[in-house]
Amino acid sequence: MTKDQPIRLGMVGGGKDAFIGAVHRISARMDGEYELVAGALSSTPQKSRESGEALGLSQDRIYDDYKAMAIREARLKQGIDAVSIVTPNHMHAGVAREFLKRGIHVICDKPLTSTLPDARKLVKAAESSKALFILTHNYTGYPMVRQAREMIAAGDLGDIRVVQVEYPQDWLTEAEENQDNKQAEWRTDPARSGVGGCVGDIGTHAFNLVSFVTGLETESLSADLQSFVPGRRLDDNVHVMLRFKGGARGMLWTSQVAPGNENALKFRVYGSKGGLEWAQEDPNYLWYTPFGQPKRLLTRAGNGASASFAHLTRIPGGHPEGYLEAFANIYTEAARAIRARKAGQPVPEDVHFPSVVDGLKGVQFIDACVRSSKRNAAWVGL
Amino acid sequence: MTKDQPIRLGMVGGGKDAFIGAVHRISARMDGEYELVAGALSSTPQKSRESGEALGLSQDRIYDDYKAMAIREARLKQGIDAVSIVTPNHMHAGVAREFLKRGIHVICDKPLTSTLPDARKLVKAAESSKALFILTHNYTGYPMVRQAREMIAAGDLGDIRVVQVEYPQDWLTEAEENQDNKQAEWRTDPARSGVGGCVGDIGTHAFNLVSFVTGLETESLSADLQSFVPGRRLDDNVHVMLRFKGGARGMLWTSQVAPGNENALKFRVYGSKGGLEWAQEDPNYLWYTPFGQPKRLLTRAGNGASASFAHLTRIPGGHPEGYLEAFANIYTEAARAIRARKAGQPVPEDVHFPSVVDGLKGVQFIDACVRSSKRNAAWVGL
Amino acid sequence: MTKDQPIRLGMVGGGKDAFIGAVHRISARMDGEYELVAGALSSTPQKSRESGEALGLSQDRIYDDYKAMAIREARLKQGIDAVSIVTPNHMHAGVAREFLKRGIHVICDKPLTSTLPDARKLVKAAESSKALFILTHNYTGYPMVRQAREMIAAGDLGDIRVVQVEYPQDWLTEAEENQDNKQAEWRTDPARSGVGGCVGDIGTHAFNLVSFVTGLETESLSADLQSFVPGRRLDDNVHVMLRFKGGARGMLWTSQVAPGNENALKFRVYGSKGGLEWAQEDPNYLWYTPFGQPKRLLTRAGNGASASFAHLTRIPGGHPEGYLEAFANIYTEAARAIRARKAGQPVPEDVHFPSVVDGLKGVQFIDACVRSSKRNAAWVGL
Amino acid sequence: MTKDQPIRLGMVGGGKDAFIGAVHRISARMDGEYELVAGALSSTPQKSRESGEALGLSQDRIYDDYKAMAIREARLKQGIDAVSIVTPNHMHAGVAREFLKRGIHVICDKPLTSTLPDARKLVKAAESSKALFILTHNYTGYPMVRQAREMIAAGDLGDIRVVQVEYPQDWLTEAEENQDNKQAEWRTDPARSGVGGCVGDIGTHAFNLVSFVTGLETESLSADLQSFVPGRRLDDNVHVMLRFKGGARGMLWTSQVAPGNENALKFRVYGSKGGLEWAQEDPNYLWYTPFGQPKRLLTRAGNGASASFAHLTRIPGGHPEGYLEAFANIYTEAARAIRARKAGQPVPEDVHFPSVVDGLKGVQFIDACVRSSKRNAAWVGL
Repeated sequence: MTKDQPIRLGMVGGGKDAFIGAVHRISARMDGEYELVAGALSSTPQKSRESGEALGLSQDRIYDDYKAMAIREARLKQGIDAVSIVTPNHMHAGVAREFLKRGIHVICDKPLTSTLPDARKLVKAAESSKALFILTHNYTGYPMVRQAREMIAAGDLGDIRVVQVEYPQDWLTEAEENQDNKQAEWRTDPARSGVGGCVGDIGTHAFNLVSFVTGLETESLSADLQSFVPGRRLDDNVHVMLRFKGGARGMLWTSQVAPGNENALKFRVYGSKGGLEWAQEDPNYLWYTPFGQPKRLLTRAGNGASASFAHLTRIPGGHPEGYLEAFANIYTEAARAIRARKAGQPVPEDVHFPSVVDGLKGVQFIDACVRSSKRNAAWVGL
Repeated sequence: MTKDQPIRLGMVGGGKDAFIGAVHRISARMDGEYELVAGALSSTPQKSRESGEALGLSQDRIYDDYKAMAIREARLKQGIDAVSIVTPNHMHAGVAREFLKRGIHVICDKPLTSTLPDARKLVKAAESSKALFILTHNYTGYPMVRQAREMIAAGDLGDIRVVQVEYPQDWLTEAEENQDNKQAEWRTDPARSGVGGCVGDIGTHAFNLVSFVTGLETESLSADLQSFVPGRRLDDNVHVMLRFKGGARGMLWTSQVAPGNENALKFRVYGSKGGLEWAQEDPNYLWYTPFGQPKRLLTRAGNGASASFAHLTRIPGGHPEGYLEAFANIYTEAARAIRARKAGQPVPEDVHFPSVVDGLKGVQFIDACVRSSKRNAAWVGL
Repeated sequence: MTKDQPIRLGMVGGGKDAFIGAVHRISARMDGEYELVAGALSSTPQKSRESGEALGLSQDRIYDDYKAMAIREARLKQGIDAVSIVTPNHMHAGVAREFLKRGIHVICDKPLTSTLPDARKLVKAAESSKALFILTHNYTGYPMVRQAREMIAAGDLGDIRVVQVEYPQDWLTEAEENQDNKQAEWRTDPARSGVGGCVGDIGTHAFNLVSFVTGLETESLSADLQSFVPGRRLDDNVHVMLRFKGGARGMLWTSQVAPGNENALKFRVYGSKGGLEWAQEDPNYLWYTPFGQPKRLLTRAGNGASASFAHLTRIPGGHPEGYLEAFANIYTEAARAIRARKAGQPVPEDVHFPSVVDGLKGVQFIDACVRSSKRNAAWVGL
Repeated sequence: MTKDQPIRLGMVGGGKDAFIGAVHRISARMDGEYELVAGALSSTPQKSRESGEALGLSQDRIYDDYKAMAIREARLKQGIDAVSIVTPNHMHAGVAREFLKRGIHVICDKPLTSTLPDARKLVKAAESSKALFILTHNYTGYPMVRQAREMIAAGDLGDIRVVQVEYPQDWLTEAEENQDNKQAEWRTDPARSGVGGCVGDIGTHAFNLVSFVTGLETESLSADLQSFVPGRRLDDNVHVMLRFKGGARGMLWTSQVAPGNENALKFRVYGSKGGLEWAQEDPNYLWYTPFGQPKRLLTRAGNGASASFAHLTRIPGGHPEGYLEAFANIYTEAARAIRARKAGQPVPEDVHFPSVVDGLKGVQFIDACVRSSKRNAAWVGL
């Protein structure tokens, strides 16, 4: 990899039929910063091979096994610089450690792990590695999310008082996991997803997002989890009250049984001087109300948009960007960090990507929600 | 009062500068069902007199004192048939009892009373009176709210699982009560408002609304109340988790410190077969999603509107009705009930207005929220 | 009528089943400024009588004939001060003249007349009468419409360049006039509506609205009218290009065959310094973009609302007002003018209601559209 | 190029600072179907070289001159399969012919050419070439636009009656072309843009879009063009009335001086059985009203989405796609066609991309608008 050459990327998981693998590949490709050159794309060797061929990988860089891939790629002169991990949650920790210990940068899907002990081990592995660890909490990649964070940090809202975040979906309203839907199967299976269902799959996104945007630390929470669909083994609806350090209060609702909601992640933040609202399904808009003044519609790359994020947007205002562009921003920010490392320089200050510690906090959040709910929604510290 | 003559109406409270008194008068007048003929419009005699004259009342029917009014009007041949009570909360009970015991129908603003004992006494008074007691939880008067209720009762949503209701405002973001704003003063004064601030002023509307729409009984709740504005004596932000009989769960958020929200009462109800959404600021719309199908926009008096509520709407679809029309619907439904009583007939089955028992439930809700919050958001039964 | 007594009102037309009659009555009643005391509510004597009785009129003030009503009421000591004319269009002129010449103020529905000669005669009659003539172009009564007008007059948009106005409906998508729908029958009948169908029924509202809001005079227009529904005798879709004095250009579209549109009157005005958008179905909002800045949401009685129109709004921001309140504003403004006349004072400067001359311009607009369309959309001066 | 290898792509124009060049490159890269290997990226040799190096092209495939590039690449064993032309409009024809005559597929930005004679010549060149010609009217690449087209073709709207299309922007509200803004300079320069300003730059998109969606042929039009900004040499606001073959009527408005509009392309189509609405800034939604039923919100990849376009969407409903994904769809469809050609097969029937003939129609539209406007908006045939 020279300055302008693409970063050589490997992938673990993400074979045929895996929605999120394709998303990672498009995101890596979007800005020309990465080239996919190796993969252990499935735990089933034949599927891994077929998937690798379909993606145009060289035969000798299609692996049956992620460990073999880590070992060999680390030795190759032109081996991968970074690996994307897009397996089910319970495998993240084991896979990541194999690459981290060999100095290969890791870009890992969320949640960090399926158990808290695994998460703690992974934090240690990442901290003792010279490689970077990037968690793809992709919603933090939206420019208007970045702008909300910047405005709050700059005090535009005054002291933050109230945080309302929600992330409802509806695709698990019926027992989809019994209908041969692989996406539903592993997400509702404690062995593969951990103790959290909806709370882990998407609740952790909501939690990460408001932590990122507000900069607030959650002190404690009170959670009420439900499994509404008969036979479902993990939660599918989650109500949480939040108490933040410094006195702000919040609510988090996430559900996968709310008909009429596709992917309706939304936050609203209110302070002593103003309020902000953002909705993922209409991500080019940020609503800002300075207290006592009319509500203003800030648009990505349009009037009211912060110049700080010009490098995270590709086209003028009114030309909508979406989920893939935001996801690509995580990859592209990661590329800046990886290139800086390679050049022996510190990661630039304006690079923000979710870290392994953010990942640990996410797993702690899941764990705290589950523990609180078992204790009748008692307050649980984080 | 003959069949087509207006109902003779008195009013207690609602003098100059009182927002809600004017709303009641317009609502009473809207459909020509009432004529305001008497009033004890202020506890300050001169203000009462001036207000009465400005409204065109006869001199002899402007009273300094509500009790004097109740006594005299009950004796007059053409005395008032009904009285509207629009005083601060703590006076509701005392005033209402004077009229109820004399057989004068009472139309009373919410919340029912400022204390739970007062509420219980008032229920008894109402139950032992031959007069009707109507509580103006006006949001139940919107046609699309009625339609939501009808659809849920008909099973269009299947089993109800999740209820999200919120009622944020922003007008108390700063210490308005210290700025000579009378509306803010009494609403933040425990002596006049009772133990609840925001939770009593508007939280009780939200609670009443979802109870009305879903038909669900709240089993228990966990509430976290805050006063964010320095020096404020009552809550100004309220987070509540709700458990309903039968297993449904819910969340209620209400706030008066959320910049960018004027009067943003909104509910969303999700069941095993579909979802509904309604927002008070855009009240002519009801969003309905049958699970697995596109979201549909049902409009007041338009396509998808139920014929059941044709008598609660005055103009065709696309000609927006608003808050006053919904408020008037409470009055006009009350008129049908009052006329039925007068004629010795039962109240028609399709007449729905919030009752004294609904009012008691509202006060119990306020009380439960305050008690729960004092006990660190412990679950409290209702 | 003393200072605070209601204005005595009569009505011509508006019997049973007439939508617009009820709208006028509610509007007159809304603010307590009028009392309906007399009526010639139908050209069918029995229907007139039944309608009058249902409205609680005294027997001796229910008339079979509007001329008889004008004559007798003018002689009565407590005769009507004003009359509302809500007949089909072709009768407006004849009815109005009978009242005007007897000094009874006229509040008349739009369009002014069904023919241009009639309109001219009526202007003369109004100008030579000491009574006022108020045309209920009710959409000008919305507070946010008033605010748009004020902002444009104040130069907030700079020089006006482009005016886009549209008024689509869908209720005549099929041949409703053959389905025993009286509203559809007279609106599609040249004998009762004049030369314009959709252009007269609603296009004239759109034209009046943008003339009112922008203050621009239309110099010439090019119109293309269509009757899409087989057998329909008048236009049901209208495309117009507009040239205004001073160089601004505009487009007007109105249709009654556009499925998905209930009553979707909307205007957008663009100038060298900013833009404004308003939609009748969501009338509490006005969108304002100062060029180069974020779009702002101005709300009725909320932040950004002009104080000039506080008297035309009854409730706080977030409590939606609608069509009836806007219509009532016309009546209430008219009442201020009528009371001023009665007191021998000039009409207050801040009273705005559509005049007989505005009505003439509306009829000229209809006429010009029809003439232009017949000449293959040639430019026609107004 | 073997079956799964990327198509080798060259680019003419699109050097540094050229917005649309970057858009084409991202679009080509999005689905991994193309690899950029050669370029004549600027008419300034040094800029071309710097731009090529920044994009990682080999030194020997960075050209100073597009003709040299065409000649050499056509001879190379691994020369380019296709070329993207992203120069100013007046160069399209000359550049395209050089590649077409050498059998290199052309992907060309719109409008096709800056003059009608050029357009006609280019059609001949394309028709006599064995290479494909793809015009990037990118808005036709949105899945919901495809769905609208499919629904209309299937008769879901019945007979089309009314077509309303608009494309307002605001970035030329002031004389940006005098502020050293290169994008504004060439777009307002007749030498580089041709006879149309706004009408050519974006009006042609609007025209192409409704032609594509409705399948209607425009019979004649009446246009009124304006240049509102002092000193501007081409139109900046355009009003057009449209008459379609078969009797439908339409309106087209496009403007670059409408403050508050970023890139607000929108169409509405109404027929005897229903209506459709789509807005480019919120492209994942398509509003469908079957006459007499509630409006329905169809969402990309969600409920109500047609299965026909699953291959043109990458992520589930609720995960918004945007402008770049739609643009990429044009490239990816083109890739299918190019691969089919390479394999000696016909272009698959379900591949749709704007053709050179569509491009000619666009130039005819511009020409007709300009001619009509010069003749006082006379009707001009197409």
